[in-house]
Amino acid sequence: MSFTEDTRVDKHGDRFIAEIRAGWDIVGNANGGYLMAIGARAMAAVGKPQPVALTAHFLAPGRPGPLTVTPAVAKRGRRFDTIRATVAGAERPLVELLGSFGEPSAADEAVRVDAEPPALPPADDCVRVRRSPSGFPPPIMDRVDLRLHPDDAAFMAGKPSGRPEFRGWFRLAGDEAIDAFALLLAADIFPPTVFNANLPVAWTPTLELTAHLRCTPAPGWLRCRFSTRFITGGMLEEDGEVWDERGRLVAQSRQLALLPRP
Amino acid sequence: MSFTEDTRVDKHGDRFIAEIRAGWDIVGNANGGYLMAIGARAMAAVGKPQPVALTAHFLAPGRPGPLTVTPAVAKRGRRFDTIRATVAGAERPLVELLGSFGEPSAADEAVRVDAEPPALPPADDCVRVRRSPSGFPPPIMDRVDLRLHPDDAAFMAGKPSGRPEFRGWFRLAGDEAIDAFALLLAADIFPPTVFNANLPVAWTPTLELTAHLRCTPAPGWLRCRFSTRFITGGMLEEDGEVWDERGRLVAQSRQLALLPRP
Repeated sequence: MSFTEDTRVDKHGDRFIAEIRAGWDIVGNANGGYLMAIGARAMAAVGKPQPVALTAHFLAPGRPGPLTVTPAVAKRGRRFDTIRATVAGAERPLVELLGSFGEPSAADEAVRVDAEPPALPPADDCVRVRRSPSGFPPPIMDRVDLRLHPDDAAFMAGKPSGRPEFRGWFRLAGDEAIDAFALLLAADIFPPTVFNANLPVAWTPTLELTAHLRCTPAPGWLRCRFSTRFITGGMLEEDGEVWDERGRLVAQSRQLALLPRP
Repeated sequence: MSFTEDTRVDKHGDRFIAEIRAGWDIVGNANGGYLMAIGARAMAAVGKPQPVALTAHFLAPGRPGPLTVTPAVAKRGRRFDTIRATVAGAERPLVELLGSFGEPSAADEAVRVDAEPPALPPADDCVRVRRSPSGFPPPIMDRVDLRLHPDDAAFMAGKPSGRPEFRGWFRLAGDEAIDAFALLLAADIFPPTVFNANLPVAWTPTLELTAHLRCTPAPGWLRCRFSTRFITGGMLEEDGEVWDERGRLVAQSRQLALLPRP
């Protein structure tokens, strides 16, 4: 039982067979980053091996059970292949994907970085998010090791910080190595930023998520920050930054989520 | 001759015929936001009328001449239709698109905004970017009215600010009304941020651009800011914010561009 095994795809003709395994859900619905990782594995299998920029539009919630992923190569290029894919459950399409895939790059040199990784206490001094029998925090927290900045964690005790932001450490359970596919999970695993915003909102369904993957992380913890600046027009963005233990930006993400009307 | 006319699409069976009109290019290659607008018009014609979140991957440069746009509806939903499309020139595909489309929304109320529009002098005190016979600034500057913050404009005289950022006012030539499609142009019309970064780079080709369209702008100028924080791994992001004259955030954009090796 590992992220790698639980996002496995098997080629059958033009399609790939996969499965939403139990335990990767939030109140029954599979995590969006987990579904993106499954789709991206099938896309990588028909083109270059590393997602570089990947966009998902979420059509319907995914429940545990069989999946098919149908990738299609739009262009094979020298540096990048452009690939789209549909991830479908037994009854309907769940996720539509479009991405550019490249070769793993050692070119992780920073020419210019005008931002700092988020300041965090050591992981052991942060607040681990553990699944609760009540369903919240959800069972997926058994599959990962998520440690929130203490200032951002009091929402679990009913005391949101007032800032729509989460900062914390992330790794997979058992410290499984984090590849480009697991970065997609990292981009969608933190609690919704509105949980810290003093709004009467229980969930913010994601319409679209785009991740940019700059380089493969060094082994160890990821240092993450997710924040929202604009809650307008019934929508909000969540901007994510993911850094590795060597202090390198390894991924950026942005999602557009819907603010349900109370 | 207007943006609306120059992004027109005509239905022919399952496809749409369009044309890259002269004058929307930068050194011969059509602006990416202009191509997105043409594709989005065909997508809107087969689904709900307004792009809400739209991602483009750019496969090849577009030269003036005929286009076909082939949209495909992935899902028809109550609030959003998910639609993909391929924009192709006479010889090859140019742009692959994936987007969610909705109804025009009057729901522009801001629940929370933790950012200010960029501070700008009045448009008449900013620096208008005018086409030059040398090709730079490019001819597309005749089609729009782009006025840069004086602090960001000295790069045209060989004095980059040192900050990879552009702030300025935008409108279409003749003050043509700006709809959701013209916002896609606005998201890609400012000079590349690296032009202000003291790097020996003449261009940064866009791999991917995602725009989130929050509401239709009020008539008048758009107040824009494009900035880059991370130039790493041979790539950089450009984050855009577009505000209208009523002080509302109307669009956000992020693109992943490539940093050519000198």
